Amino acid sequence: MGITVCVVGCGAVGSLFAANLATLDDVEVWAYDLAQAHVDAINRDGLRLTGAGEVLGRPRATTDASELPPCDFGIVATKAMHTDSAIAATAHAFAGGCVATVQNGIGNEEVLARHVERVIRGTTFPAGKITAPGVIQWDVQGDTTFGPFEERPAPLEEVERLADACTRGGMPTKAVADARGPQWRKVIFNAATNPLGALTGLTHGRVCERPDLRALASRLVDEGKAVAAAQGIELDADPEELIDYAARPEVAYGHKASMLQDVEARRQTEIDYLNGGIAEFGRRLGVPAPTHESIWALVKGVEAAWQQ
Amino acid sequence: MGITVCVVGCGAVGSLFAANLATLDDVEVWAYDLAQAHVDAINRDGLRLTGAGEVLGRPRATTDASELPPCDFGIVATKAMHTDSAIAATAHAFAGGCVATVQNGIGNEEVLARHVERVIRGTTFPAGKITAPGVIQWDVQGDTTFGPFEERPAPLEEVERLADACTRGGMPTKAVADARGPQWRKVIFNAATNPLGALTGLTHGRVCERPDLRALASRLVDEGKAVAAAQGIELDADPEELIDYAARPEVAYGHKASMLQDVEARRQTEIDYLNGGIAEFGRRLGVPAPTHESIWALVKGVEAAWQQ
Repeated sequence: MGITVCVVGCGAVGSLFAANLATLDDVEVWAYDLAQAHVDAINRDGLRLTGAGEVLGRPRATTDASELPPCDFGIVATKAMHTDSAIAATAHAFAGGCVATVQNGIGNEEVLARHVERVIRGTTFPAGKITAPGVIQWDVQGDTTFGPFEERPAPLEEVERLADACTRGGMPTKAVADARGPQWRKVIFNAATNPLGALTGLTHGRVCERPDLRALASRLVDEGKAVAAAQGIELDADPEELIDYAARPEVAYGHKASMLQDVEARRQTEIDYLNGGIAEFGRRLGVPAPTHESIWALVKGVEAAWQQ
Repeated sequence: MGITVCVVGCGAVGSLFAANLATLDDVEVWAYDLAQAHVDAINRDGLRLTGAGEVLGRPRATTDASELPPCDFGIVATKAMHTDSAIAATAHAFAGGCVATVQNGIGNEEVLARHVERVIRGTTFPAGKITAPGVIQWDVQGDTTFGPFEERPAPLEEVERLADACTRGGMPTKAVADARGPQWRKVIFNAATNPLGALTGLTHGRVCERPDLRALASRLVDEGKAVAAAQGIELDADPEELIDYAARPEVAYGHKASMLQDVEARRQTEIDYLNGGIAEFGRRLGVPAPTHESIWALVKGVEAAWQQ
């Protein structure tokens, strides 16, 4: 029996899921996005991935949420600050389904749970960038992890069904009972490195090869680990290893973090959901995270200066 | 009996001293600077201050240190990273004299003491900017403090003689036995605010009106106070007061910190002598200054990215 999946927010990461899932005969894929040119290109020419994988998928794309059919699954992939408006517009399609997030940062599941009944906590490592409408440069391959969101859980068998479809489609995905470990590892990795690139202008590799900035990243990792530990979260691996792995020339040495791309384009960043998320959990739990507070303040200041 | 004073480094702050001192009949003033156009304009039209004070002084200016006569006093006002080369070139003129610093940051006296015998620790609050060769916009008035540098002290009566000339010339200056308190207050003020402007692009006032950045400034102040206290230095006033005072519309709300001016012009900053100086004293004394370490690393990263 086939399933229907709607990818909500079809930027780089959303497109990786939409194109790969659309290669499966038993999955009907919809792509919801507000960029009309991207949607038109997908409907005309298909959704093309190049780089780490060569894929041409043919999801049905729309900017009009009222066109969406009832879906078994949603995969939300917007920037974190657009979660609320995106799920508010599309929630009707998931009245009988389950909605997963593959977004950056902390707190996206809580926003989804205000609109839909069954939520899947998720985190994903693949990355890329849109190079033209309908065309995505697939930069980095990697795993995805899904698990029931504790406060409004999707049934584990549904989580497994979505993970199976993603894996068969070319996006290796695990279903687990507690997805917080991988999610916090990714968030700590992002919060320890992305804003350092954004504030300095350096690529990931150049941040890591400067001992002073690498030490700053480690201060951020240590504070993040303490905030995770205070919630009983066991990281599935050390974020430090991921930082060093990503710094390799063949991985992401020359990669400009998405937050640096945002700053260069003067687009609002995801800092509130990365360092801001860790800092707020720290405040709530009484775990000091002064370095995250500092970095959060600096990036918010950068955004404020654009209005100067 | 008259005195001869050479201002070494005749940028904005050096020019405030040179022009004001040159209005005194009993002081012969030389201005040593490497900017030929500035030197030529001073020798042709005089050195003009406008803004907080209207002054036209006529120091003798030169780019050639060998032209300098024996001087009773030097006032070094270069950027901190140029101290060594500037005093190396001019030290012969101070073989029988005393040399004061009015520079930003920590460690300038130590550099001077490698080249001359009698050193005056100093700190100054007035600020301005060069608007054209020979013309300085005087933005902020303020006090100067001089005292013998502990490791190679100038005699206190000589310190008093220089302070008296500056005061009579229009730059209110105190001679004290221990000038470390005012100096550390200024350094802590600068280190707590200048790099926040430089990293975000915000003016001093806009940094201060954001609670998150103001809290970051306070973290930097607290660490700086602890490093000062560990050396037995008593601050003459709280740097927090100076931060709030400077944020007033009539003082420096709209002022772009010199470090922000440097970053916008892609000029090397004085970060090594501000947050870097505090961090290094902290390391030596075993006093943690992680926020200064973080800010130091970020600004060095910004400088490194210019070479990307």
